[in-house]
Amino acid sequence: MRAYFECYPCFLRQALSAARRVGASEAQRGVVLRAVLALLQDISPDTTPPEVAYHVHRIVRETISAADPYQQAKAESTAEALALYPKLKRLVAESADPLDTAIRISIAGNIIDFGATEVIADLWPAVERVLEQPYAIDHSAQLRARLENVDQVLYLGDNAGETVFDRVLIEALPIPVFYVAKGGPILNDATITDAVAAGLDQCTTLLDNGSNAPGTVFSLCSEAFRSRYTRAPLVIAKGQANYESLSEAGDKVFCLLRVKCPVIGEDIGQPVDGIVVRQSGQERIQHDKDHLRCQ
Amino acid sequence: MRAYFECYPCFLRQALSAARRVGASEAQRGVVLRAVLALLQDISPDTTPPEVAYHVHRIVRETISAADPYQQAKAESTAEALALYPKLKRLVAESADPLDTAIRISIAGNIIDFGATEVIADLWPAVERVLEQPYAIDHSAQLRARLENVDQVLYLGDNAGETVFDRVLIEALPIPVFYVAKGGPILNDATITDAVAAGLDQCTTLLDNGSNAPGTVFSLCSEAFRSRYTRAPLVIAKGQANYESLSEAGDKVFCLLRVKCPVIGEDIGQPVDGIVVRQSGQERIQHDKDHLRCQ
Repeated sequence: MRAYFECYPCFLRQALSAARRVGASEAQRGVVLRAVLALLQDISPDTTPPEVAYHVHRIVRETISAADPYQQAKAESTAEALALYPKLKRLVAESADPLDTAIRISIAGNIIDFGATEVIADLWPAVERVLEQPYAIDHSAQLRARLENVDQVLYLGDNAGETVFDRVLIEALPIPVFYVAKGGPILNDATITDAVAAGLDQCTTLLDNGSNAPGTVFSLCSEAFRSRYTRAPLVIAKGQANYESLSEAGDKVFCLLRVKCPVIGEDIGQPVDGIVVRQSGQERIQHDKDHLRCQ
Repeated sequence: MRAYFECYPCFLRQALSAARRVGASEAQRGVVLRAVLALLQDISPDTTPPEVAYHVHRIVRETISAADPYQQAKAESTAEALALYPKLKRLVAESADPLDTAIRISIAGNIIDFGATEVIADLWPAVERVLEQPYAIDHSAQLRARLENVDQVLYLGDNAGETVFDRVLIEALPIPVFYVAKGGPILNDATITDAVAAGLDQCTTLLDNGSNAPGTVFSLCSEAFRSRYTRAPLVIAKGQANYESLSEAGDKVFCLLRVKCPVIGEDIGQPVDGIVVRQSGQERIQHDKDHLRCQ
């Protein structure tokens, strides 16, 4: 998905928020802001939002501090989510459809996102809502079918804290999972350290994608990650930034997310707050099938 | 109040929203966006948000269309507010403190603001909340005292629809009111036409400020308005943009508003959703009084 014009206010907000979090002075924030305004004037039309965000946060890092602006927020989100972990496990254990419940819990965790917003709502009400809510897009039958025919999952993580919700889903999956964290700090995205703090080292093989862009920007990822992605028989991609990166990446990719902004909503064709299990490239596949049927 | 860096994302959002409302093409929206990005790079530190917004919307007008992007939204807001008018009047009539109820109703109407947000919440629940809510800043005793010692009020209006709520307050005031609309369309601010549609011609002397900037940017207002403002013994200034323009304009000015964004919240020292009756320059006055007491 390309960066829409409506994403631009959000890039400015992210830059100012990150700068504030590393204690930038007024003058430093002015320098960051002007650099981001200049960057936004030069974006080519096919750039994805994660690519722009990568450059925005690089400006903050190079202008003010290489420190991780979201370190404290990430630790707090993880601690808050871990406090819910026993309750989340119980929901799955007591469910008539444990996999569906675990998928929903993983999507509920996607509410923790400092890229899309500055204030995270209470987690437990979000879980309760997502458990009852109909899917806005539901390709979970396709996901279940794939899960029965592969021997491993490449799970592209999203944010710290959301990691704990991912863990609940991963522990409900019947096959080994390779969990991909970011190669360096970006927004509140989980690094390997954040993934370990969520206990993901206990149930997955942890690796990083070699990049400190949000989502999955292949040109910025390591060769090792790209190779593993290419070979993966099934990819679960969490969150908006992975949707922005991989919405047309083909039918082995399933995006699990909560729609948190009107721009994603417009792109995906669903309202804000919708919960989504979406197989990438689905429309094209459908079209191909229709085409075959006609022959 | 100067434009904070945190206002910049909002200026971009306003430009894109206004462009979309006049049916701009993708290419036109790109031109507007780049022009606004360039504008924001050149803002001097003491510029107020209404001054920036004036230039932002001038860019939309000059690039795409001189049509009023908010014409339909304004008509809808006014119609929606007029439907509540009998209920609002009854609230005042049945109140133990009619003036307080009328002040609160006028502030409740300030929820209608396409500058601060894109989606207006339901009006009636907003009224009910504001009737019960403690003031975040309450200089209404000072306002009442002034009202008893002057023979007229200059009432600086804000948005279409909010005009109906202003009418309820104005009809509860014991002295003549001169109601100031904008000299031309800007955001969903009320022009004379919008004020007439709200029935304000029936209870006030209507005039315009000669400007199509939000709030009150004196350098863009007519000489006739400036002269009337200077002579006015009491000014009631509605909404965030008038607060941004007049927060330090001296003790004859009372700003009535609902805090709708964190930037105003930080400037005014109150949380978002707070309701405010604030005498401008109050801190200085307090300081002077303390100083006198020490002598």
